[in-house]
Amino acid sequence: MIKKTAIIVAGGSGVRMGSKIPKQFLTVKNKPVLMHTIEKFYTYDPQINLIIVLPESQIAYWKDLVKKYQFDISHQVVCGGQSRFHSVTNGLNAAEREGIIFIHDGVRPLVSHETIERCYQLANEKGAAIPVLPVYESLRRLTNDHNQAVDRNSYVNVQTPQVFKAEVIFDSYDTDFQDWFTDDASVVEAAGMQIHLATGNRENIKLTHPGDLQIAEVLL
Amino acid sequence: MIKKTAIIVAGGSGVRMGSKIPKQFLTVKNKPVLMHTIEKFYTYDPQINLIIVLPESQIAYWKDLVKKYQFDISHQVVCGGQSRFHSVTNGLNAAEREGIIFIHDGVRPLVSHETIERCYQLANEKGAAIPVLPVYESLRRLTNDHNQAVDRNSYVNVQTPQVFKAEVIFDSYDTDFQDWFTDDASVVEAAGMQIHLATGNRENIKLTHPGDLQIAEVLL
Repeated sequence: MIKKTAIIVAGGSGVRMGSKIPKQFLTVKNKPVLMHTIEKFYTYDPQINLIIVLPESQIAYWKDLVKKYQFDISHQVVCGGQSRFHSVTNGLNAAEREGIIFIHDGVRPLVSHETIERCYQLANEKGAAIPVLPVYESLRRLTNDHNQAVDRNSYVNVQTPQVFKAEVIFDSYDTDFQDWFTDDASVVEAAGMQIHLATGNRENIKLTHPGDLQIAEVLL
Repeated sequence: MIKKTAIIVAGGSGVRMGSKIPKQFLTVKNKPVLMHTIEKFYTYDPQINLIIVLPESQIAYWKDLVKKYQFDISHQVVCGGQSRFHSVTNGLNAAEREGIIFIHDGVRPLVSHETIERCYQLANEKGAAIPVLPVYESLRRLTNDHNQAVDRNSYVNVQTPQVFKAEVIFDSYDTDFQDWFTDDASVVEAAGMQIHLATGNRENIKLTHPGDLQIAEVLL
């Protein structure tokens, strides 16, 4: 059996949500967002190893929430770093170098099991897979002095989980941080690997704005 | 006073919605989507001229809906064409060549008055304005043989209404159709005009998938 590990990164503050509570702890359907996200991976495969990456300042609060909600899905908590790259590095350091590693945003509770499974299959075959969707709206590129229309059919929107064979992601993260590392795929790509594209699910939005919580409330 | 005309283009079928009813006629909050969209412009400015562009095959059905819902906002109905470009051309032919022209998707009932007003002010000053938002998710560009990460900060997502001084939009549409005309701004840009960017609103999504209706139900 192939070992599976999910590193769930929850590094956000509440700033864009207009809230003092970090967005991963806001309540949707009677539970903090992060618990929904963890449950989604647990119900996908109860054998999966779960590593939750949180800013150091939020760990005690999370542990209180776990008690308060009697949240009983077993998981490991590790400290986040200065950027997503550093947080994922800390998550990897807590993981076994074996099997398939899923890296997922803590504020994407609406990922479907089908999306997770498609990425898993493709990563298992090719080494590196991410879920994407077509760009549904017109897109413009900002240029030095202005902006111009581009063909949206040449682009895709990237979601998570970003899924990798253990050796691929461990080798790729054995590098120095670059400020253009915006996601895990960009780190792996910089190491010379090709990224393969699976189909995501449209509900799998990143909850970052107040209206998103209302949307999640309906869709969860 | 500056004359305002809104051309609301509702050319969709129900295919992506998995419905036989065209998406602009699906019911949200007790009313067809298109009526919500029309109301949004009417309440923005009750003096605005409203031109609704519909496929010929849907016009009788729309008139039945107007009676059934006792929808009493005055508007003109014109026949759509083979593409958005042709539909907008028909809408322009029904409009007066004066003041400011708003071109809006019939399935975007969630546009805010603030977005409409920002575009109006900017178009009135500069000639051509569209609402945009940052790209919130990672973006990849598809290449001939693969795909690669691009800097999402160099791109914006485009919404509607796309707003123009009458002379700008009439002159720009006096041209032959090109298949890369994906929106009105691309037509105006092809005519040599610069497009100016106003801030849109995040709720202003184009209702194209079944889950979008649930979202609209909450946000309306």
